[in-house]
Amino acid sequence: MTDFFSGIEKLQYNPDATELAFRHYNPDEVVLGKRMEDQLRFAVAYWHSFAWPGGDPFGDATFERPWAGDTMDKARLKADVAFEMFDILGAPFFCWHDADIRPEGATFKESRRNFEEIIEYFAAKMESNKTRLLWGTANMFSHRRFMSGAATNPDPEIFAWSAATVKLCLDATHKLGGQNYVLWGGREGYETLLNTDLKRERAQAGRFLQMVVDYKHKIGFEGAILVEPKPQEPSKHQYDFDVATVYGFLKEFGLEGEVQMNIEQGHAILAGHSFEHELALAASLGILGSIDMNRNDYQSGWDTDQFPNNVPEVAMAYYEVLRAGGFSKGGTNFDAKLRRQSLDPVDLIAGHAGAMDVCARGFKAAAAMLEDGTLENKRNARYANWDSEEGKSLMNSDLASIAQTVESSGMNPQPKSGQQEVLENIVNRFV
Amino acid sequence: MTDFFSGIEKLQYNPDATELAFRHYNPDEVVLGKRMEDQLRFAVAYWHSFAWPGGDPFGDATFERPWAGDTMDKARLKADVAFEMFDILGAPFFCWHDADIRPEGATFKESRRNFEEIIEYFAAKMESNKTRLLWGTANMFSHRRFMSGAATNPDPEIFAWSAATVKLCLDATHKLGGQNYVLWGGREGYETLLNTDLKRERAQAGRFLQMVVDYKHKIGFEGAILVEPKPQEPSKHQYDFDVATVYGFLKEFGLEGEVQMNIEQGHAILAGHSFEHELALAASLGILGSIDMNRNDYQSGWDTDQFPNNVPEVAMAYYEVLRAGGFSKGGTNFDAKLRRQSLDPVDLIAGHAGAMDVCARGFKAAAAMLEDGTLENKRNARYANWDSEEGKSLMNSDLASIAQTVESSGMNPQPKSGQQEVLENIVNRFV
Amino acid sequence: MTDFFSGIEKLQYNPDATELAFRHYNPDEVVLGKRMEDQLRFAVAYWHSFAWPGGDPFGDATFERPWAGDTMDKARLKADVAFEMFDILGAPFFCWHDADIRPEGATFKESRRNFEEIIEYFAAKMESNKTRLLWGTANMFSHRRFMSGAATNPDPEIFAWSAATVKLCLDATHKLGGQNYVLWGGREGYETLLNTDLKRERAQAGRFLQMVVDYKHKIGFEGAILVEPKPQEPSKHQYDFDVATVYGFLKEFGLEGEVQMNIEQGHAILAGHSFEHELALAASLGILGSIDMNRNDYQSGWDTDQFPNNVPEVAMAYYEVLRAGGFSKGGTNFDAKLRRQSLDPVDLIAGHAGAMDVCARGFKAAAAMLEDGTLENKRNARYANWDSEEGKSLMNSDLASIAQTVESSGMNPQPKSGQQEVLENIVNRFV
Amino acid sequence: MTDFFSGIEKLQYNPDATELAFRHYNPDEVVLGKRMEDQLRFAVAYWHSFAWPGGDPFGDATFERPWAGDTMDKARLKADVAFEMFDILGAPFFCWHDADIRPEGATFKESRRNFEEIIEYFAAKMESNKTRLLWGTANMFSHRRFMSGAATNPDPEIFAWSAATVKLCLDATHKLGGQNYVLWGGREGYETLLNTDLKRERAQAGRFLQMVVDYKHKIGFEGAILVEPKPQEPSKHQYDFDVATVYGFLKEFGLEGEVQMNIEQGHAILAGHSFEHELALAASLGILGSIDMNRNDYQSGWDTDQFPNNVPEVAMAYYEVLRAGGFSKGGTNFDAKLRRQSLDPVDLIAGHAGAMDVCARGFKAAAAMLEDGTLENKRNARYANWDSEEGKSLMNSDLASIAQTVESSGMNPQPKSGQQEVLENIVNRFV
Repeated sequence: MTDFFSGIEKLQYNPDATELAFRHYNPDEVVLGKRMEDQLRFAVAYWHSFAWPGGDPFGDATFERPWAGDTMDKARLKADVAFEMFDILGAPFFCWHDADIRPEGATFKESRRNFEEIIEYFAAKMESNKTRLLWGTANMFSHRRFMSGAATNPDPEIFAWSAATVKLCLDATHKLGGQNYVLWGGREGYETLLNTDLKRERAQAGRFLQMVVDYKHKIGFEGAILVEPKPQEPSKHQYDFDVATVYGFLKEFGLEGEVQMNIEQGHAILAGHSFEHELALAASLGILGSIDMNRNDYQSGWDTDQFPNNVPEVAMAYYEVLRAGGFSKGGTNFDAKLRRQSLDPVDLIAGHAGAMDVCARGFKAAAAMLEDGTLENKRNARYANWDSEEGKSLMNSDLASIAQTVESSGMNPQPKSGQQEVLENIVNRFV
Repeated sequence: MTDFFSGIEKLQYNPDATELAFRHYNPDEVVLGKRMEDQLRFAVAYWHSFAWPGGDPFGDATFERPWAGDTMDKARLKADVAFEMFDILGAPFFCWHDADIRPEGATFKESRRNFEEIIEYFAAKMESNKTRLLWGTANMFSHRRFMSGAATNPDPEIFAWSAATVKLCLDATHKLGGQNYVLWGGREGYETLLNTDLKRERAQAGRFLQMVVDYKHKIGFEGAILVEPKPQEPSKHQYDFDVATVYGFLKEFGLEGEVQMNIEQGHAILAGHSFEHELALAASLGILGSIDMNRNDYQSGWDTDQFPNNVPEVAMAYYEVLRAGGFSKGGTNFDAKLRRQSLDPVDLIAGHAGAMDVCARGFKAAAAMLEDGTLENKRNARYANWDSEEGKSLMNSDLASIAQTVESSGMNPQPKSGQQEVLENIVNRFV
Repeated sequence: MTDFFSGIEKLQYNPDATELAFRHYNPDEVVLGKRMEDQLRFAVAYWHSFAWPGGDPFGDATFERPWAGDTMDKARLKADVAFEMFDILGAPFFCWHDADIRPEGATFKESRRNFEEIIEYFAAKMESNKTRLLWGTANMFSHRRFMSGAATNPDPEIFAWSAATVKLCLDATHKLGGQNYVLWGGREGYETLLNTDLKRERAQAGRFLQMVVDYKHKIGFEGAILVEPKPQEPSKHQYDFDVATVYGFLKEFGLEGEVQMNIEQGHAILAGHSFEHELALAASLGILGSIDMNRNDYQSGWDTDQFPNNVPEVAMAYYEVLRAGGFSKGGTNFDAKLRRQSLDPVDLIAGHAGAMDVCARGFKAAAAMLEDGTLENKRNARYANWDSEEGKSLMNSDLASIAQTVESSGMNPQPKSGQQEVLENIVNRFV
Repeated sequence: MTDFFSGIEKLQYNPDATELAFRHYNPDEVVLGKRMEDQLRFAVAYWHSFAWPGGDPFGDATFERPWAGDTMDKARLKADVAFEMFDILGAPFFCWHDADIRPEGATFKESRRNFEEIIEYFAAKMESNKTRLLWGTANMFSHRRFMSGAATNPDPEIFAWSAATVKLCLDATHKLGGQNYVLWGGREGYETLLNTDLKRERAQAGRFLQMVVDYKHKIGFEGAILVEPKPQEPSKHQYDFDVATVYGFLKEFGLEGEVQMNIEQGHAILAGHSFEHELALAASLGILGSIDMNRNDYQSGWDTDQFPNNVPEVAMAYYEVLRAGGFSKGGTNFDAKLRRQSLDPVDLIAGHAGAMDVCARGFKAAAAMLEDGTLENKRNARYANWDSEEGKSLMNSDLASIAQTVESSGMNPQPKSGQQEVLENIVNRFV
């Protein structure tokens, strides 16, 4: 045991607690036929919690972590603390990038060896710890070699480096029993159109993703391949702008049956969407995979990656997840970082504990709304005429016939109330 | 002749003019092998110039037009003034919605008759006037029957009404020799997810567009079918959010070879993109059709539809159009309205004349940049390694082989300057 | 009795209701020593509920109200329905613009007479109805004469017209026992700097506001004069951008002791602030007056004026109101309109009822947080060193002395955790 | 001479150049009665050009500068290269923060000694080099001690540390003959209202600024004290939000005669304003001091600090500067950084050279517009009625008298065209 979290006990469920505890998240409580732990499938993000030192574009690191430094010893200490935190939180899952967990080596080979050694270290820990891997991913945006993209780089050698990196990370994810593998293309985009060939870069990205899918099948990885959309930042424009954009990309390369989405609230907001929009859209297209449940500040134009704290918003997100059948391989990752002024070890625990409680409240409200059924009944009733014979045949008709009918029938359709306020009031009975 | 524009003569090209004239737009000047008139293909939008009375969400009409009123006489007077303005401007094209040009009737049939009568009136004028039709379109968003959408309405009767309306407008566009037919789905979207079935509405939209394409072929219309993306407003969310979103939609319904884009600067901005991004993306996907060259105020969160006035921005837009081969059936429509304080007839002329000059300057700069070739040479050089044998074979490889090569070769790719400032300086030699 | 709301009874408090009722708002429940009705002081906005026909920039009216039309008979019918709605809701207050309640006359005099007649009609109703006037205001933005501003118009005659209009509205507000008088300067701003003299317009605005304050004192009106900030829309830039901007304006003209703020959530959002920011800032400057509790859609760049429906957000707003001592003359106005698809009379009731419940929940949560005291204790503790002798003397020191002390003392101040997540968790125990 | 810029010669003015040169900026050309160098007063920002390593929130340093490292030797090497660049550019001014130029020491004293040694090093260079200091400033946002603010920190010791730091920087600015001293309060704001006492922090900021002004007078510094507004980033909310906000703050503390504004285009955009708005507003309030002429990407929600490259926009900015009389102590600072992919030394030169040319073109266009006079004549004509006797007396009247006149005169003021498009066309004759 390290002493990083000394004095902090494993969190308990206690609805009356005013101190550190779960007031709403009871892992064993059954909601919609499953334990909440199995419904929510919470994951801790290794990078924000353990690899980010508290810097921002205008300031240096604020956190003083005993594991700071680029050595294997530090990497192991970091892993020790991480698994201690997973225990304290009772976190069923975690997620990592390769660069979060190992020091960069002088060569690809050295980086690989460092990485594989830590993966072994994780594997050993996971034998005694219940925390599993929700997903692994490769950091192909921090090192300067990736400054102009990874798969979409104008330099084929960087494409190659990236391909080798994903292979490594996919192998490790497979080895650790990961449920999914995620690709977020932070620098798969451009800074200026003036030096960019959109057609080439798109072709590179399509081919790269196909290779990843092929390799997944080759090694028998049964997890889902997930793309995480974001409209921009760090790139001026990121190719995986939002769910609709990625869908078009998948369709172009015939990958819509192979790849799903990992959707983040903060990224949805930056793209001009509500979180529930992105979730509902992905669900309607059959590509909803997993979520990053961290919010963005509505007044900030960059990714703030804050822990969720608005229960009604979280409820609407889970409502879409539940309408789509709930999580299968996916889960609720907190791609959330402490504010850089939150210096203390206890802040790390408090941030996650509060988020888990907010999610538990939101999830239970969403489940109750769905069980109540009023919202879905009203939604279906609104479209009921499309289920009539006339509605169905209309879909198979053509403009000329329809025009004839419209004119000959003297039809004069009248609008009906959309009842938005009534529906919002129904929601507020549950959230 | 009406007396609306009395005292205003047909505009002449005069590079030294300080009063109303074209200082830069010389229709007969040959640029890149074609007359500028044939390159730019300017169009006047009937709605903003003749059907919008100067109201806004907080204020009533400010314009006092002699043709205000919902009678056929007023509709003809409006047409008279419109064609007088086309003459003054020497506008080669115009565009309309059905609702701009005819009074709404009590029934579909009466509306149709009103519409067809005005179409005849237009046809007669077009025999003696050189102005042609760039595109026609149907207004399926203003009347209250469309408040919950047209093709995507929960009420099949409104889908039917919409289908009949598009048939009518496509027939009229065909009759007048229109070069394109446009669909902008202002209310094809939602106000709240709570009452919306995304999957159904998407299926309705897909089927509707297929019907339009089928009908186009049936009647032998050789113009292009164009979809105009916009992210929102009036809807909270509009399905045709941006070029990438529409592309995914077209792919889903197998229409990507049949439908192209009509792209507007203001809509691009509202979607979080630069105009040139939307143009370049559409070009790279093979679906660039036509443009609406009206700008949005960068500080306003709604569609301001202002005449273009920033030459460097316009130049970058035409640069993408020219890289894609220039306009074929498409053109430069001004979907632009006067500010509502610009009350005078001369303001209408000044708004268009200034815009045409700004476009002419931008177009000439774009042509010069393309002819100069430096930008394109630099762009191609950046990707040159992908054209090597190694680059080509990499695209056909797989993760495992690549990983082996990366490690065995000891490869250590180094980033190269993206030269953004250098490229921007080159642009500034031309704009 | 009109039959507009036929079948809808006066709303009751019933915490278990699933149909139209108050589930949380119990006017007689005592919170923080006062009845909730007296704490929250709800007001219905006449304009959105009774004068707005459901149009938007892309569409015509959707509502079909029996009082549509510009006659005095219709104006009285509108008033009859309005007071019936006040009864159904048990609304303690309402608010109006002159233009909401009377038909525009052909002359100023005729408009005045129409207005005064309706004011009499209101006065008569108010004798038997418990609803009082929270505030009156003048609509100086809808008529085309105000297109370039009211007090800040380049035409002195429009300044004069505006002054006469405010006099009339202030007289009427005084007569009806209004608690406040509001000025919102929707067109006190500009469309383009090119035709605008900022210095002159500012001087005009300052002088105008001084005249209003003088007249208030002259007639013995004891209500508060409130300015309502908004950054833009309809103007490209509105002078009363936000609380901080108005404060500077008041200081320049020596009016900071005479004028307070009416702050709206939607306007705060458009200005790039959270609602609670604007409230806390106004409170810290001593100019917090009243609130418009209607939310903006976070993804829309225009004013959506929706009924509030997010309890945690509403709670944070009331928390700032309560920290500042609660409402004195101010109250909670719903400057909220139905969505234009919400066509039915019951939607009007549902919108308000839901909003009142959301506010009641938020208010009770805010009161509990304040009574609990943890948040305020933590806030005060963070600054405690400033209350020490050293802290106090530092404020009276000078750079040179301080620099000497810093260097000689070898001081090395260490940052302390800001505890944001911990504080947010505390909030979530109450909301 | 270092070899960093080897092969790059001092830039020459050559209007026909296609390679690195000034095509528009001729320092000796006289515009509006002064040499362009004396009009534009360009300054290079030390921090972006020499202290920023090319990192961003998602990536590490990309630049590989020989002066990287925290030693005095490196600091001197950095200074050597900086002055070499000033020579190449012919830059008349530069600007620095303390932290840009010296390594942080273990104590305040050690930092001070490092700083003073570099200031001496600068002073020596400035004897032989024509580049002077436009302004100095203190970096009170990067070190973790400032994470919760400097003057507005809850910890008085950090206020003290900040005061000592400003004293030091002001002394050095004075010593080097600086024209201005700037305060930008990047962390004078908050992350969450929950832990913030707005009233206290405002009082601290007011007192701090008063101390700075007092000290300026005490040491006889004749430069201007400038505050640089920015709405947010890194803080969620920054107190110096925009010009209007800072004006209110200055008025509250009686400092409006002592302090002026340093206004940046990028910050204006983030605050929801055009750059020319902020300039025109500051000018109208008498507090326009100096400018940071770096643009923000319109599609990015964070500060991108790019070199200016849009001539029409730059022209409108200088037009406001010139209307206000041009620069006195202020100048044109490029608070601009290379894109992080622009790795090469030549990129640094190209970025500045292009920016200087863009500014020169914009400045000359602005001067021509002002000399032409049409715009100002039209502006004045619009307000002419306010200069009549009736206009003047109206400003001294009162509501009751005005109301009487309005009604008795039968006045019916009519709106006049605002001519925005006409005015924009005039601008386009010059830009």
